[in-house]
Order: sequence, then structure tokens, then C-alpha cells
Amino acid sequence: MNSIPVLEIFGPTIQGEGMVVGRKTMFVRTAGCDYRCSWCDSAFTWDGSGKADIQKMTADEIWDQLVAVGGERFDHVTISGGNPALLSAIGELVQLLHTKGIQTALETQGSRWQPWMLDIDDLTLSPKPPSSGMKTNFNVLDQIIEQLRPQNNTSLKVVVFDDADFEYATDIHSRYKDVPFFLQVGNDDITSTDTVALTQHLLGRYEWLVDKTIASTAMNNVRVLPQVHTLLWGNKRGV
Amino acid sequence: MNSIPVLEIFGPTIQGEGMVVGRKTMFVRTAGCDYRCSWCDSAFTWDGSGKADIQKMTADEIWDQLVAVGGERFDHVTISGGNPALLSAIGELVQLLHTKGIQTALETQGSRWQPWMLDIDDLTLSPKPPSSGMKTNFNVLDQIIEQLRPQNNTSLKVVVFDDADFEYATDIHSRYKDVPFFLQVGNDDITSTDTVALTQHLLGRYEWLVDKTIASTAMNNVRVLPQVHTLLWGNKRGV
Ligand code: SF4
Ligand code: SF4
Repeated sequence: MNSIPVLEIFGPTIQGEGMVVGRKTMFVRTAGCDYRCSWCDSAFTWDGSGKADIQKMTADEIWDQLVAVGGERFDHVTISGGNPALLSAIGELVQLLHTKGIQTALETQGSRWQPWMLDIDDLTLSPKPPSSGMKTNFNVLDQIIEQLRPQNNTSLKVVVFDDADFEYATDIHSRYKDVPFFLQVGNDDITSTDTVALTQHLLGRYEWLVDKTIASTAMNNVRVLPQVHTLLWGNKRGV
Repeated sequence: MNSIPVLEIFGPTIQGEGMVVGRKTMFVRTAGCDYRCSWCDSAFTWDGSGKADIQKMTADEIWDQLVAVGGERFDHVTISGGNPALLSAIGELVQLLHTKGIQTALETQGSRWQPWMLDIDDLTLSPKPPSSGMKTNFNVLDQIIEQLRPQNNTSLKVVVFDDADFEYATDIHSRYKDVPFFLQVGNDDITSTDTVALTQHLLGRYEWLVDKTIASTAMNNVRVLPQVHTLLWGNKRGV
């Protein structure tokens, strides 16, 4: 068995974002990312600060740890990062989880293809808008979406911080009209520890994004969501 | 054409609840309900206070009004009440909307069957827990779910205010294991006009519901959501 660099295994909690928002789930967070987004809220997965916490684990070891932490209180596992699509060994983990009757969700920016993407139950592709400082490789993204299309397991999610990001989101939605599309408000204060103030601020940003979506005739078949876990728990990790 | 008693037509806005939470949509609210829930947040649909606002409208007239209000900024219409399942004429409206390329969502407590339920794109059955003061007729609900099962368009949603409601929700989920299941935190202060205080209060209630769900081994394949529109706009109507 190949090993996977794991940074955190926690839960059960709820999924705070995207196509299965609110779903009771466990989280497995992998280390490493090919991007360096300016506002990354998981920079510890790639900036060296979490290095000491990385454990190389096989799929079996991850399963044992999931059961040790979550007991019988879960039937769904979310794999996040970093970018888990850097890791071919995720395929073994997903297969193992399925044999245990566990559903899987995974999020990646869509910069790399992995054949196991076909097996994920709820796959979120989250290409990064201009404010991230990253550039989307549309050749790769086109090919990924082409291969996933028959599977019907995929949604697109774009995090929006400003007007330029909203334009980018509009372009993504019109490029892949048939893929379920989610807009998410960006958290522009990832260090605040004042959860009440942060909640009110993020709800204000969410209202701004809702208003922009309401006004746009190019954004009809879309869903607009806040980060629900941030409304609940602010910037705390591991919840 | 038969006429439908309509209380409000507004939007576009976002759907604040359930299976398509966040979806950009128009709302058509019908008058009349066979229930009298203690905490009903739409009591004006049945308690006489909205009587002067009721308009009898045909499906064509409703469509004209939707376009007058929403222009080209929508492709989805949510029909709510009251209990729209009291009205057989909803079938004509749904058919008309589909010919216009519009998707439809509808919510009802599941106390009455209508054949047009098969045609709704996103149908939410929301049986009412003990705190409502209402009693679920499980013969009717069983039959409705039986007929809808092949359609795959249905989800169950239970609003939870207290421990007894959570037990009721657990029973509903185990009775209909295969139907996507949503837990929603109840708004126990439907008169507050202090939106900030209400938001914080409801997020606290939401955390309570999340914690109960996390702790329960009978509640794994579930989704737990707040009322997103109430977090944004408090108890304001027509948004
Ligand atoms: S792709 Fe995700 S994990 Fe990677 S830098 Fe960007 S936000 Fe962070
Ligand atoms: S079923 Fe819905 S509309 Fe009717 S009384 Fe109960 S909460 Fe109000």
C-alpha cells in the first residue's frame, strides 16, 4: 500500500461548504499543494508550518484512525487539503471506504487529473479566481470536466472576494453550463478570533454576493452559500 | 384554467432552506393551510391577517407577474405556503413553468397527496414535530413517499426546536432511510426585529442541533442546516 501524507483526521462534524453543505462527515486533510493562494485558509498544509504534524499513513491506517475518532457516528468522509489530487494513493483510500459502506467527498482546485476522481461520490472542483494570485489552466480543467461529465458526481465552486472574482465566476459558469455551480463568499479575515464580529462581517459579505447574483442575468442556475462552519466556529481549526 | 389563491410573488432571491439551499429562485406563496403550527412563521397565510392581500390568479397570470417582477433574472420558482398541496391547480402552474424552461421547487408538510408532486423538480416534505402541536398522519405520509420514491425528486426536512423534536426527527429518518434527510434549526423568535441578536441566537441554536446530530449514531446520513435567509434578513418578509 502506498502512503498518504496526512495532517489532520477529525470529526464527525458538518461539511460547511458546497454541494453537500451541512452533511455530517469526518475530515481527512492531506498535506501539500501545487498552488499558493494569497488568502489560503489552509496554508499550514504547504507553507512548512505544519510539517511536524504530517504523518505518512496507509489507507488502512487512516481507516483505523477514522474509527478511533468517529466510532459509529459517521458514514461519510471528506478528503481535503492542500490539494489531494496530487496523491495517486487517494484511490486506495476511496476504495477502502466504499467497501466499508462510507460515502466520500473531495475538493480540489482542478489543476491535476486523477482516475480516482470518477469514484468520489461528491466531487467539488474549485478553480481559483484572480484575487488568489493563481492562474487557471483551462486545458487541464476542460479535460477533467470532460472525463467527469458522464459520472454526474461533480460540482464547481468559485470563492468570490471582489468584482473581478465575480466576473471570473461568471465565465466559469458559462463555460461549463451543465455542471452544478456554487458561489461561495470568501473569508477575508482568516486571523480574527472575535467570532461574533467575524460572523457579522461575513454575513455582510454574503449579502453583497447574494445581491450581485440576484442582479445578474448570467447567474441564474446557481447556488450562493456562506461558509457555514465559519459562521459557527470562526477561524478555529479541527471543528 | 383554475385559479390559485396567491399571497406573495417576489424575487429573485435565494432559497434559504433545505435540499437546494442557496439556489437563486423566485417565490410564489399560496394562501391556506390545513395545519395550525404553534410556531408558524407564515401564519398570515391562514389566520385571516393576510386575507385582503389574497389574489385569485391563473397559472398564466402568475407567470406574467413572475416575469414582471423577476425579468430575465431567474430560471427557478419555489412554490410555498401555507400548504400548496391543498391546491390541485398547482399542477397547471408547474406544467406552464416547465414549458418556459423554469425549474420548480415546492414545500409541503406531507398531509395531502397531489399527482403534480411527481412533476416538481425539488420536492420537500416537511412533517411537523411535536412542538408544533400538530399530529403526523403516517398513513398519508407513507403513501406519499411510496408514490414519490421512483421519482428521486424528494427530500424530507424536519424543523427541530427541542429534544422531543429531535427524537421525532430520528424516527422519521429511520422510517424513510432512503430519502435524503435534512435537519433544520427552528426559529423560536419570529417577532424580533434586532437582526444581529437574532442571528447570534439562531447560530447558537444551530450549534446545539449540530452537536446533537454529531453525538447520535442514528443520525449519520443527514444534513443539518440553518435558515440562511433568516441569518441574512432576520424576520423580514418578501426577501
Ligand atoms: S488551492 Fe486550496 S490549499 Fe492550495 S493554496 Fe489555494 S486555497 Fe490553499
Ligand atoms: S404547515 Fe407550514 S404553513 Fe401550515 S401552519 Fe404549519 S408551519 Fe404554518
